Amino acid sequence: MNRIGQSTILLPRRPAVISCAALAGKKEGEGPLADDFDRIVEDDLFGEESWEKAEARFQYTAATLCLEKAGMAPKDADAALGGDLLNQIIAASLSAREMHIPFLGLYGACSTMAESILLASMLTDGGYMRRALCTASSHFCSAERQYRFPLEYGCQRPPTAQWTVTGAGSLLISGLTEDFPRAIARIPALTPGRIVDLGVTDANNMGAAMAPAAADTLCRHFEDTGTSPSDFDLIISGDLGRVGHDVLLELMQQKGHPLDESTYIDCGLEVFTPEQDVHAGGSGCGCSAVVLCSRILHQMENHQLRRVLFMATGALLSTTSSQQGGTIPGIAHAAVLEAPDR
Amino acid sequence: MNRIGQSTILLPRRPAVISCAALAGKKEGEGPLADDFDRIVEDDLFGEESWEKAEARFQYTAATLCLEKAGMAPKDADAALGGDLLNQIIAASLSAREMHIPFLGLYGACSTMAESILLASMLTDGGYMRRALCTASSHFCSAERQYRFPLEYGCQRPPTAQWTVTGAGSLLISGLTEDFPRAIARIPALTPGRIVDLGVTDANNMGAAMAPAAADTLCRHFEDTGTSPSDFDLIISGDLGRVGHDVLLELMQQKGHPLDESTYIDCGLEVFTPEQDVHAGGSGCGCSAVVLCSRILHQMENHQLRRVLFMATGALLSTTSSQQGGTIPGIAHAAVLEAPDR
Repeated sequence: MNRIGQSTILLPRRPAVISCAALAGKKEGEGPLADDFDRIVEDDLFGEESWEKAEARFQYTAATLCLEKAGMAPKDADAALGGDLLNQIIAASLSAREMHIPFLGLYGACSTMAESILLASMLTDGGYMRRALCTASSHFCSAERQYRFPLEYGCQRPPTAQWTVTGAGSLLISGLTEDFPRAIARIPALTPGRIVDLGVTDANNMGAAMAPAAADTLCRHFEDTGTSPSDFDLIISGDLGRVGHDVLLELMQQKGHPLDESTYIDCGLEVFTPEQDVHAGGSGCGCSAVVLCSRILHQMENHQLRRVLFMATGALLSTTSSQQGGTIPGIAHAAVLEAPDR
Repeated sequence: MNRIGQSTILLPRRPAVISCAALAGKKEGEGPLADDFDRIVEDDLFGEESWEKAEARFQYTAATLCLEKAGMAPKDADAALGGDLLNQIIAASLSAREMHIPFLGLYGACSTMAESILLASMLTDGGYMRRALCTASSHFCSAERQYRFPLEYGCQRPPTAQWTVTGAGSLLISGLTEDFPRAIARIPALTPGRIVDLGVTDANNMGAAMAPAAADTLCRHFEDTGTSPSDFDLIISGDLGRVGHDVLLELMQQKGHPLDESTYIDCGLEVFTPEQDVHAGGSGCGCSAVVLCSRILHQMENHQLRRVLFMATGALLSTTSSQQGGTIPGIAHAAVLEAPDR
């Protein structure tokens, strides 16, 4: 079995991330990662008639740009895997419709980028696919109107609320030996997430709802593999934001795997500055996707980072479950990324 | 590579379906498959306070019953894969929350059962998971109120409309040699679906919208593998219903792979009788799930069927995309099921 411990998966071929692309919206383009994004789209409609269609265009543009940067076309990938926050993941479907390759739709809320990396890594490692394309997106406007209120209301937001990132990230994973020399990162191991729900019901405090799932995944990863936080140059959570970031630090301390604040970051805190008035930070499927597919992979390519644990977190609620008083199930999937030997 | 032709995947270990369970609602329990269902749930709330929670209970009960029938508990599976039609696949998430094992959420609309089989087969074949649990559900009441109108309106339905099946199906796939003697079916090959959209916009005629995707997948499967419809005891589509069933027959004729009506069935036409007044037939993620996990796998277990091509179809629209005048993207994923040698 290609497994170690309770639930960590080993990938003997260590599939390679051979290309990535990140598109971001105007506000994200005014943030600290501006220079790392492939493209900043100022128009929140991206030339389309609706925010949902705009989000689909974000996905499609990121996916095709990722392929182009590798000198490839959609036909060079054996499948597109991806999703988003919209009902019926319509942005991912509309994007995949234009690519004419097999499509596997995923829903892991804001953990979708990591879920797609998990699946694409196993499918390429096993030789079931040559290359697989992973894409995730979110859009502030489409998310607000679906999950919260019409933008025109100008609702007040509590300090624990996060700001949905407008953007899409895409990366191409290959299991082909001939692609390995151009690897940006190799993927040797994965730890899939279990749902953890400690009873948080406040949809304006999803960081707190997701942090226990993040701690569960990190602890299983360290215990399964016999590693510790200090074995990584960087440990990255998806979009816990300020509140969840601090809860995770505390939980990991309690569980005996304390994280070092100098090597732990949360994408929700990286994508905006505090001055951008996003309260607890960024969120959305696009949050971890654009951070990973821009600065993180650039730093791996430049050998500033050698060993990274990327973990995206998801809050698996729906508006209906919230209205029915349900608590928020959290999940977190993790993948190890290693810069190749050069 | 474990591939053949353009896009068909070969599974050298031929993972085994070692257990299955199907729960159905009252109307489905009055239909032709009544004797094949493990349990018929007369109460459409299944003892819960809402239809969404009832649907989650359908999923959880089917999943745990599937495991129990194999003498197993959730911890014996390395992951649960599944989804449903509800926004943010809340039924699948709430069900997986109770199982405390890794969860990979999928969205393929009514193709979800097949999508989960595809992924679970590759993950177990490659030794990344010992066993993986595939579950899909739908519920007439939760689907109607989310996609169409409040039930209390008593809307008129056009003849092309289909009736969302209330039910859940679950099956357990194993890649462990020691599990193979109890195989109900083995899975040697898969053909993942591409999105095909020929411009149908009528959300009351999803069979017609999905049939071209079904034809695309079937033709790729036959061409990739050098097989023909006559190589199968049965070819099964998910929920094309009467309209889509007839469109598929015509498309396959045109494309040079004519289907024999005596060995081609659609789950949407199997689950209800015409007298049950469901217009064009059944639909929903639960439709193909309950038919596969009851009669089809029972007939494979009894050697009445030896070689089956199971293909579930999905209409990847959302209410938002429909309201915005969008056309309906269709998809269809296929898996070959073979009764084991005895």
